[in-house]
Amino acid sequence: MKIVIVGSGAVAINLAYGFATTTNFQVDIAARNPQKAKDIADGLDLKVYISSIEKCDTNADLYIIAVSDRAIEEVYQQLIQHVDQDSCIVHTSGTTSIEVFGSEARSVGVLYPLQTFTRNRIIDLRDVPFYLEAKDEHLKRVLVMVVEELEAKWDWLESDKRKAIHVAAVFACNFTNYMLACANQVLHEEGLNISVLQPLIEETISKALESENPIAVQTGPARRNDSRTIYMHEAYLKNTPELKELYSIISEKIMKKFE
Amino acid sequence: MKIVIVGSGAVAINLAYGFATTTNFQVDIAARNPQKAKDIADGLDLKVYISSIEKCDTNADLYIIAVSDRAIEEVYQQLIQHVDQDSCIVHTSGTTSIEVFGSEARSVGVLYPLQTFTRNRIIDLRDVPFYLEAKDEHLKRVLVMVVEELEAKWDWLESDKRKAIHVAAVFACNFTNYMLACANQVLHEEGLNISVLQPLIEETISKALESENPIAVQTGPARRNDSRTIYMHEAYLKNTPELKELYSIISEKIMKKFE
Repeated sequence: MKIVIVGSGAVAINLAYGFATTTNFQVDIAARNPQKAKDIADGLDLKVYISSIEKCDTNADLYIIAVSDRAIEEVYQQLIQHVDQDSCIVHTSGTTSIEVFGSEARSVGVLYPLQTFTRNRIIDLRDVPFYLEAKDEHLKRVLVMVVEELEAKWDWLESDKRKAIHVAAVFACNFTNYMLACANQVLHEEGLNISVLQPLIEETISKALESENPIAVQTGPARRNDSRTIYMHEAYLKNTPELKELYSIISEKIMKKFE
Repeated sequence: MKIVIVGSGAVAINLAYGFATTTNFQVDIAARNPQKAKDIADGLDLKVYISSIEKCDTNADLYIIAVSDRAIEEVYQQLIQHVDQDSCIVHTSGTTSIEVFGSEARSVGVLYPLQTFTRNRIIDLRDVPFYLEAKDEHLKRVLVMVVEELEAKWDWLESDKRKAIHVAAVFACNFTNYMLACANQVLHEEGLNISVLQPLIEETISKALESENPIAVQTGPARRNDSRTIYMHEAYLKNTPELKELYSIISEKIMKKFE
């Protein structure tokens, strides 16, 4: 199978790396700025062919648009002027509906890898759940072949539910990371490092995931309605008003939940 | 060594279990409500002697006050009227200063296990970092003997830095758990479960801890200043205003951080 990945960000590179190292598929990266993609791919020793969008193969089996949400439509319009009519085209966005592709008679769909990707940090795609969406049987078969070849977990999911997962992922991933950043800021002021919290953080996550209902295992001063400790913590944070404000807002939300 | 643990909550039970199963120390639990402590201890098959505070041994080597922050002082006043003058007394609180014990000539200090404890969920204490504080050499020796016998990691830490760790722990543990609870609420409305996010959550935590500076690995729409996605997510959350509000507030804080 011939796959063209459009993009040079963390998702594009991670997908390219996964395909190039674990499948027998032929993989190209097509990017607006081929040099940028080449620099990253060289660092990873990727056996892929890198070109600009205008120069990529016109007859690949699957085109994967792995660009920022707001650029998907534009890239799609470029692609369909360039590639064969019967080529399959998918995007990788959690938030963007399949409707972004309009109503043309094309094989269009979604290949959403539910993971947080960072440049130069390669994720084993076998550990990533993929959520797929496709309107026609041909693309459905292509997508299943792709995720099976990657040995990834996968499921079909329509656009609305995929959006729910993406919103949830912002809370569970981006906001969780921000909570750790806030914790690190507090520790940093005392010359301490986030690593002291490692066992605590790992137990918190294990407990929440095992419970399957994190609110049922909520702990802490706000859960106990321990206003004395909350007051002392807020006083402690008086020199970092942005942390103090966040502490108060989230504590209040937790207390309200358990009223 | 003879240890009396005062309390019947999750910390008391976890410490009692740790001492009773991994050390040769003799352990008593003394609680205001011995029956409550007994019910829990029986479920865990704990070989401890359970009594009320007034009836506990007067000559133990160490008394560990593992009660809620606001009850520490009262329990301490009860204890010193009952136990020998040379007994060591510590509390287990992250927030409460050593000054809670007043200025009497007693061996007083702190044995703070940095972990989140829940009833009926037993933690291996060897994975828990203990932070110790003591004013006199005798208690210092006793505390080191205790944590070494538990095979736990430990360090000395004065009250102010311990408070910083506790504030950080609220962000990293309690608030992180709440973010997962919010994610679960979003998923629940669509008939999905937090378990779909497990690989994402685990990668988020690994990345943050490995970076030693979570803000440096922040991702997500707010990090990218992707107001279009943020707007779509807020629109998606319109039926759960409390989630929408939290989404907006934290997104704004992240955007401000990267201005």
